[in-house]
Amino acid sequence: MSSIATIRELATRLFLACRVPQQDAVTAASVIVSAELRDIPSHGMLRLPDYVRMLQQGRINPAARPRVMHQTPSTALLDGDNGLGAVVSVKAMELAIEKAVRAGTGWVAVNNSNHFGIAAYYAMQALGHDMIGICMTNANPLVAPTFSAAGLLGTNPIAVAVPAGKQAPVVADFATASIARGKVDLLHRQGLPIREGFVQESSGMTSTDPGVLKRGGAIRPLGSSREFGSHKGYCLGAIVDLLSAVLSGANFGPFVPPSVAYLPLKEDLPGKGTGHFFGAMRIDAFRPASAFRDMMDQWISTLRQAKPARGEEKVLIPGDPERQAEARNSKGGIVLMENVKQEIARLCEETGVSCPW
Amino acid sequence: MSSIATIRELATRLFLACRVPQQDAVTAASVIVSAELRDIPSHGMLRLPDYVRMLQQGRINPAARPRVMHQTPSTALLDGDNGLGAVVSVKAMELAIEKAVRAGTGWVAVNNSNHFGIAAYYAMQALGHDMIGICMTNANPLVAPTFSAAGLLGTNPIAVAVPAGKQAPVVADFATASIARGKVDLLHRQGLPIREGFVQESSGMTSTDPGVLKRGGAIRPLGSSREFGSHKGYCLGAIVDLLSAVLSGANFGPFVPPSVAYLPLKEDLPGKGTGHFFGAMRIDAFRPASAFRDMMDQWISTLRQAKPARGEEKVLIPGDPERQAEARNSKGGIVLMENVKQEIARLCEETGVSCPW
Repeated sequence: MSSIATIRELATRLFLACRVPQQDAVTAASVIVSAELRDIPSHGMLRLPDYVRMLQQGRINPAARPRVMHQTPSTALLDGDNGLGAVVSVKAMELAIEKAVRAGTGWVAVNNSNHFGIAAYYAMQALGHDMIGICMTNANPLVAPTFSAAGLLGTNPIAVAVPAGKQAPVVADFATASIARGKVDLLHRQGLPIREGFVQESSGMTSTDPGVLKRGGAIRPLGSSREFGSHKGYCLGAIVDLLSAVLSGANFGPFVPPSVAYLPLKEDLPGKGTGHFFGAMRIDAFRPASAFRDMMDQWISTLRQAKPARGEEKVLIPGDPERQAEARNSKGGIVLMENVKQEIARLCEETGVSCPW
Repeated sequence: MSSIATIRELATRLFLACRVPQQDAVTAASVIVSAELRDIPSHGMLRLPDYVRMLQQGRINPAARPRVMHQTPSTALLDGDNGLGAVVSVKAMELAIEKAVRAGTGWVAVNNSNHFGIAAYYAMQALGHDMIGICMTNANPLVAPTFSAAGLLGTNPIAVAVPAGKQAPVVADFATASIARGKVDLLHRQGLPIREGFVQESSGMTSTDPGVLKRGGAIRPLGSSREFGSHKGYCLGAIVDLLSAVLSGANFGPFVPPSVAYLPLKEDLPGKGTGHFFGAMRIDAFRPASAFRDMMDQWISTLRQAKPARGEEKVLIPGDPERQAEARNSKGGIVLMENVKQEIARLCEETGVSCPW
């Protein structure tokens, strides 16, 4: 069991050891800690070694200064200067919020960035400003469009955070793929089959072997098959790619740079780095915030009080599980996987950071 | 076989007979015709009888004058004055585009509206202005949130239209449910079972009987079951409901008024009518439109040229099937279902409009 304070300090020190400035190191550590708190370990400390390696290799710029390349009252294009995704994204969302204060809404397309961790973190930045926050990113090609043999799009998540009144905010954060890569890898390590519909072989044929991802296979979009609506999941993933990359001038679809250090960067890429898209909408740019908050509470309690399906406990509101995890983990701490701890211990030794385990 | 000109004139005349002003009648007919052209008959002439009945009953206001209730440089709240959804929505999208010209983006939340037909129509209004168009609406409760026994959300579609260069634009338009209601009804009429995962009984248990919708059952969200990601489809449907209704002050979730004339309007509703949400983003508010268009063409040809999965012909780009249908149907005309023709013939007789069949 590791306390939250311990992993926060450890992550911060490792970023500092890679010459990331103090404030940015704190920001990047905070996004990692948030993933652990919210029980999304695939985007937590598990990612730290790759961030550190890529900083060490010069593939991520520790001293990045994101620059606004173009703007209008409600929009901006931000060049992330190849910085840590978390550092670039917190700034991009701050800019979207600043725009929304004046113009009602703010929309920031980002290029030249890197893997940014959990999307909900940035969407939730809007909540304290009585705004709706929106965030999306493209990612390494792993997901096969409907009818495609190969993975050409990322798991391309979308997060939306909506403030309420007395109720906790609604926070949706989900990949547009049928399943997370981490879950497929876990089944593979356990030697278990995967139910039909989640992954396909390099031929495009559906498979129950979670090992296909290592052999040129791909994950299916949300919906799993054409019959069950995978074309809708594909459409969603495509929209995220177009807004994150084509609107920003980042690399799209199959050209998104790897977010892991062991894979080489391809040459002759069509765009700049990884792309994200952020939005902030001021509630009172549409109607009085108090009336909105009251109706949000009504919406939440209507769904929460709905009769559950037979055998189920209750209807959840988007964000419920993560908020409960956050309350639990912030007190009880978290359990890291043994191999993640070992890899981090190695990094500590290399960089002279004291390791808590 | 009916020619497009014939059904366009017929729809226009029926709206005129209900005292809809000339220009609005042409608009509403145009949205219906567009659905037929794009092979989405569930939103075409099939809907006309209900629109006409609801106009006759005074449940839809033929002479509606949508009013801007509040605005900022990039936003507006529009009260649809209980008009035809198509009439209100074309105006709402025009307003979003107008805002985007000045502020970079425009976002319009709409209350007090009605069923608006195909979402893609409004998203595509942006294309001619070198803008990305976004449109969504809530709808009658038919879809059960994950773990809910009852249908509490609509099929809540999302449409996004993105202009390209030499290639045709990308136009995605999809419901956030696992299957369209029309498809369930068709299987029911044919006496055929439905594959597990699409619908559930009133207890919330999955069912293969398409007749369950008539007995308090519900459609499942995109993803079909929790295991296959129905919580993501539920999140999407929830986001559409929050932006369309809670942000605008329309009726949310279970309170959305019926879009058919035979169901009575409930009393003591929490909001005003049906809600929609529209967005327009100027491409050159982010980066030069020519560079964007070039990368769009590259994106489209990359996906179009991708190796198809074994047994499939090719990877489609969102909007391909509808555009092909439009080219075919605009020349060849369309075939209406016999019962739709009969019902329209009855309406013609009642209203003194000459019937082409």
